[in-house]
Amino acid sequence: MEPLPPGPVTEGMRYATGGGKRLRGFLVCTAAQLFEGPREGHLLAAAAIECLHAYSLVHDDLPAMDDDDLRRGQPTVHKKWDEATAILVGDALQTFAFELLARDPVGDAATRIALIRSLAVASGAEGMVLGQAQDIAAESAGRMLTLDEITALQANKTGALIRWSAEAGAILAGADPAPLTRYATALGLAFQIADDILDETGDEAKAGKRLQKDAEAGKATFVSLLGLEGARERARELVAEAVNALSLYDDKADNLRDAARFVISRDF
Amino acid sequence: MEPLPPGPVTEGMRYATGGGKRLRGFLVCTAAQLFEGPREGHLLAAAAIECLHAYSLVHDDLPAMDDDDLRRGQPTVHKKWDEATAILVGDALQTFAFELLARDPVGDAATRIALIRSLAVASGAEGMVLGQAQDIAAESAGRMLTLDEITALQANKTGALIRWSAEAGAILAGADPAPLTRYATALGLAFQIADDILDETGDEAKAGKRLQKDAEAGKATFVSLLGLEGARERARELVAEAVNALSLYDDKADNLRDAARFVISRDF
Repeated sequence: MEPLPPGPVTEGMRYATGGGKRLRGFLVCTAAQLFEGPREGHLLAAAAIECLHAYSLVHDDLPAMDDDDLRRGQPTVHKKWDEATAILVGDALQTFAFELLARDPVGDAATRIALIRSLAVASGAEGMVLGQAQDIAAESAGRMLTLDEITALQANKTGALIRWSAEAGAILAGADPAPLTRYATALGLAFQIADDILDETGDEAKAGKRLQKDAEAGKATFVSLLGLEGARERARELVAEAVNALSLYDDKADNLRDAARFVISRDF
Repeated sequence: MEPLPPGPVTEGMRYATGGGKRLRGFLVCTAAQLFEGPREGHLLAAAAIECLHAYSLVHDDLPAMDDDDLRRGQPTVHKKWDEATAILVGDALQTFAFELLARDPVGDAATRIALIRSLAVASGAEGMVLGQAQDIAAESAGRMLTLDEITALQANKTGALIRWSAEAGAILAGADPAPLTRYATALGLAFQIADDILDETGDEAKAGKRLQKDAEAGKATFVSLLGLEGARERARELVAEAVNALSLYDDKADNLRDAARFVISRDF
């Protein structure tokens, strides 16, 4: 018997994880290099967080969510195939992220469990998904969010995975993640402010996605609340804060310092 | 500052895991009782598989997938709330399943990793999601599936989680899962044949979901391929096969034997 056609799910998984900045995977590997440890374990953890992030983008782009046609300069998964495929591709990418973290080269069993638990908390109903739900609830709240509220929302929606990425290197090494948590908390917020600035001033061709959606939807952003210059100033402060959090580490942390500067200078 | 409203995601997770037969959770606990082990670990593993199964139902019921309005006698999550909420509820239930398996009472770290890896394989793009993708691909294939093809498809779509449920008890105890794998392979197929019979002859009020969808869609089922009596006969053979696979165990396995008989006698 010919095997049944597998459908486009594995092809869609490959498609959805192609391209992008790979910031989260970069943070895992670069934070892990502050410590000792097998490189293969770092790479699997980096692949896991990129799969987790890609799943969130595929589902976030669906018509019932943000309804985006373009991602990383390519048609979104539900445009390239269909909505059913996009739902399954996102589902399977989440599963694959946890499967990767459970594999042998990712430290001993206790380390793998620590990474799986912390990623589940960061990405689930108390982390990233909570942030997405708060974002949707805010749209129907009938009023603009305050600066504190947007900061809290983004700490969940985009901050939690960025924090996990930086902390994972310390967890893999059995080291104290606290300095990396401070670094990534400031970095994550700076990243989101830069995203809002880019949404206002950026070039769609370079960004590879639709821009000015939040302004069109009348949603409060860091730019609408702080003004363009105020937002730039706040992002610069946060980058300084991120760099300061790394004072414990010598020039081994220079790549992380550069990454902090990159997130506010990028144009994509 | 008032915290942002969390949105309906956690409420939706509770709603989606309410009701149902809890067959998979029952299998985890009942198979685990063949061996020694802490009851709390069994219950967490049972909760995990029920969350995983509930996530698959919430996403499967979405308009882009099976488009169902009723599940377990209640409105489906996207009918009770909306599609965005249903996508997030399913996503968070999957995450929560892996989080539960990573918790302390579920055996030692190596056992937890074994359960997480096997659940990821059973539910991901080589297991349940593959079965769902094959099911969608079959609809657009322009021909009816053969009996072998439907059997292979269902072994992925519904069989993989049922097998995991029975095997988990042995994995928790560090015992050989092979007899339970044979039991659950036969049970899972009998369950699906019974589902097709129920779809043809059942009562929608008792089933708590829409019936005769496959027939209306012109899809091949075990009933359309074997006839009603042929399907009943095949299901009975499979139940005998499932019961035989347990011959190693004495009357401790009677609950599992009863469960096998239940899956073909049920009317919901």
